[in-house]
Amino acid sequence: MTAVYPGSFDPVTYGHLDIIRRASVFTDRLIVAVLTNSAKSSFFSVEERLDMLSAATDGMEGVVVRSFSGLTVDFCRSVGSNLIVRGLRAVTDFESEFQMALTNRELAGEVDTIFISTSTKYLFLSSSIVREIALYGGDVSAMVTPGVAERLTRRFKG
Amino acid sequence: MTAVYPGSFDPVTYGHLDIIRRASVFTDRLIVAVLTNSAKSSFFSVEERLDMLSAATDGMEGVVVRSFSGLTVDFCRSVGSNLIVRGLRAVTDFESEFQMALTNRELAGEVDTIFISTSTKYLFLSSSIVREIALYGGDVSAMVTPGVAERLTRRFKG
Amino acid sequence: MTAVYPGSFDPVTYGHLDIIRRASVFTDRLIVAVLTNSAKSSFFSVEERLDMLSAATDGMEGVVVRSFSGLTVDFCRSVGSNLIVRGLRAVTDFESEFQMALTNRELAGEVDTIFISTSTKYLFLSSSIVREIALYGGDVSAMVTPGVAERLTRRFKG
Amino acid sequence: MTAVYPGSFDPVTYGHLDIIRRASVFTDRLIVAVLTNSAKSSFFSVEERLDMLSAATDGMEGVVVRSFSGLTVDFCRSVGSNLIVRGLRAVTDFESEFQMALTNRELAGEVDTIFISTSTKYLFLSSSIVREIALYGGDVSAMVTPGVAERLTRRFKG
Amino acid sequence: MTAVYPGSFDPVTYGHLDIIRRASVFTDRLIVAVLTNSAKSSFFSVEERLDMLSAATDGMEGVVVRSFSGLTVDFCRSVGSNLIVRGLRAVTDFESEFQMALTNRELAGEVDTIFISTSTKYLFLSSSIVREIALYGGDVSAMVTPGVAERLTRRFKG
Amino acid sequence: MTAVYPGSFDPVTYGHLDIIRRASVFTDRLIVAVLTNSAKSSFFSVEERLDMLSAATDGMEGVVVRSFSGLTVDFCRSVGSNLIVRGLRAVTDFESEFQMALTNRELAGEVDTIFISTSTKYLFLSSSIVREIALYGGDVSAMVTPGVAERLTRRFKG
Repeated sequence: MTAVYPGSFDPVTYGHLDIIRRASVFTDRLIVAVLTNSAKSSFFSVEERLDMLSAATDGMEGVVVRSFSGLTVDFCRSVGSNLIVRGLRAVTDFESEFQMALTNRELAGEVDTIFISTSTKYLFLSSSIVREIALYGGDVSAMVTPGVAERLTRRFKG
Repeated sequence: MTAVYPGSFDPVTYGHLDIIRRASVFTDRLIVAVLTNSAKSSFFSVEERLDMLSAATDGMEGVVVRSFSGLTVDFCRSVGSNLIVRGLRAVTDFESEFQMALTNRELAGEVDTIFISTSTKYLFLSSSIVREIALYGGDVSAMVTPGVAERLTRRFKG
Repeated sequence: MTAVYPGSFDPVTYGHLDIIRRASVFTDRLIVAVLTNSAKSSFFSVEERLDMLSAATDGMEGVVVRSFSGLTVDFCRSVGSNLIVRGLRAVTDFESEFQMALTNRELAGEVDTIFISTSTKYLFLSSSIVREIALYGGDVSAMVTPGVAERLTRRFKG
Repeated sequence: MTAVYPGSFDPVTYGHLDIIRRASVFTDRLIVAVLTNSAKSSFFSVEERLDMLSAATDGMEGVVVRSFSGLTVDFCRSVGSNLIVRGLRAVTDFESEFQMALTNRELAGEVDTIFISTSTKYLFLSSSIVREIALYGGDVSAMVTPGVAERLTRRFKG
Repeated sequence: MTAVYPGSFDPVTYGHLDIIRRASVFTDRLIVAVLTNSAKSSFFSVEERLDMLSAATDGMEGVVVRSFSGLTVDFCRSVGSNLIVRGLRAVTDFESEFQMALTNRELAGEVDTIFISTSTKYLFLSSSIVREIALYGGDVSAMVTPGVAERLTRRFKG
Repeated sequence: MTAVYPGSFDPVTYGHLDIIRRASVFTDRLIVAVLTNSAKSSFFSVEERLDMLSAATDGMEGVVVRSFSGLTVDFCRSVGSNLIVRGLRAVTDFESEFQMALTNRELAGEVDTIFISTSTKYLFLSSSIVREIALYGGDVSAMVTPGVAERLTRRFKG
């Protein structure tokens, strides 16, 4: 079974990597899919986000990294997957994730969504919090890989 | 009794129409009121939103469509209504709706708000989701009237 | 239009009375309906709860007090009403209220539910909290009518 | 991959069956596991619940029905599964489900939980609501299979 | 400043101890207060709960353990404290805690409540979950002190 | 003990002042800290926000007003405080506040956060609602001090 884990990954955090590792256990192939819809401005470019994800998932069996634009269900169909994986942190997450999952089933009845609860130690973690902490010189080494931390430092020091 | 159903209706969805139809059952006159405060940018112009609403509510007894700017309670007073109707979908909705209702009673003690729970089949639906799906060529025919769907297609193909 | 405001009212609080007064403004007749399903044990008897409600709503135009058992929608049909009124306090309320409203529409499509947001000063108030405070001799005079407070005192002192 | 879908199923509803059918799509074997811990009193006996589930899932490929007592993670280990499946309806669900999933990972790090969002038309549905409606003679034919409806009728008429 | 941390502590968990330790940092005296209202049945007796708490907080400066019955605000007044401390885990917690805090201020305007967010690693933890895991022979050593774990084992093996 | 109450205060409301007054009861020194990170655009300038806060807290013992940029935990360290105070209104608040508190403890283990529940009469109140009401000429005299109300009027009439 092929599953798709879509997201912005701007940048990838240890929380995302926790979901990727756990989802890869029960899927044959997991496509980590970076959304590149131009309407939403991102901090890192698509290339940078793909680079960071590829480095961070290097050696994880069955995990591949891709980018896509448009509707998530259309991407799923294009890669022959009928399963979307999403991580859940808290209630606010849950509401919007639920809405997205129900909408996707409305658009493509054969594509289902499963949710994984984020590990407690990453419950507080989001890409935007990582960016904000890095902006003010805080220590993000417990939140992202060394490679991502270095890129954040370069960007804010540049 | 005259009630006011305020909103952006950008564009009107089958979820809005469900609320309008159900609220019209127990009100003498229901004014569907399109908010036009310039601070909030809209996708469709006020004229377009009024057109789509008028077409979609055509033939519904006691339902009229109007636009307004400023505070909702001031509009209610100007049309002699002391009842605001709002649809509720989920918890996030509920919190902001609750805050608005309590604020409106603070501003105008005689204007009350009643909430109607959205029908399950429209729980996932919002104007912003409709716009996003239409942007990427998804099928919105189960979410909006044919007239609205056509306008969305024209706008994104234009 | 006739509306039904069902509940346990065990006992009636100022929060309930706030909803009754406000709902009576936009309804022709409001039936305050005391649920007497024997499966749920109550603190006050049905007769006591009806007495307290009748005393507290005395003189409110269009408000009548009744008891019922069975399904709420069956009671609505028996009194020719197609509108249920419920007060909302907080998110936990909202979830179970929402579930009840959707279930009732499933059972009786012509019976709709509207919600009123409880006034801020009664947001903290529930019958069970009133009973608990009275049990330990706390002052409930800001939460219930003098008649209800007296009955609570008698019961716990008895 | 073998997954376990634990629950009380007291009785099984169309909401449960929706989760079972959808989970069976992406699992090799799905064990529907009826919890029989004596501490929690149930309406139907274990045998009745197993019967109803077996009848309702008859012909679903890869789906088997079992009962268990004790900790869910111990049952998962005994059947060689490291994946628990749970349906999610609303926020209140989500909180307790989340807590259970995190506790199970604390107890058995190799057992993960995935959540599936209940289809909108079953969002309002729970076993306890079905029992309550049946108790008062309401129509549950849109909520449970004919076989379950018949058992409910027999029990309440008995 | 003297603060009161009321609860059932049935039994005390590492989550409670985390709140106690952190609250003791910014209070002069912290009274951990075991609620003994007979209406609520408990698993451990008051004496056992006091014993376990005393052992677990032994050596924590400024922390004392007491029992009380009746209203929390009355206990606060009796010990000359105007500050209640409570831990928060999740949204469901938050709602009922909020209601209690607002009710307590209504009853005793001079007694305020402050909340501390539970550390992420104890977010999943509650006394009832500990009891349920111990009942079925699960490992609770990461959730309670060795002394509490031993008592649980004795009780369930007894 | 020194505590820090950080926020945007754009502008300060009676809700903020309620938190300040109550927190000042159990702290030796309360630093009301206006966040000035340039990334977030504000309605009033830092100077205006400091002026309004200083006027509104004039005469409150132990309360000082300061501005800061960067991470809140770094500001706490710079003023020798290990306690952050935050007000809570509703569930949406709670989630983001919780996330911030857990992140701050991750960044600075010695800095803890305590929450105070907003008084019921200010539960509906936020700086953004005040600005929106003032923009459309609504009466904000129950929400902010006369001094703040005057500044709002000047700004929108200017």
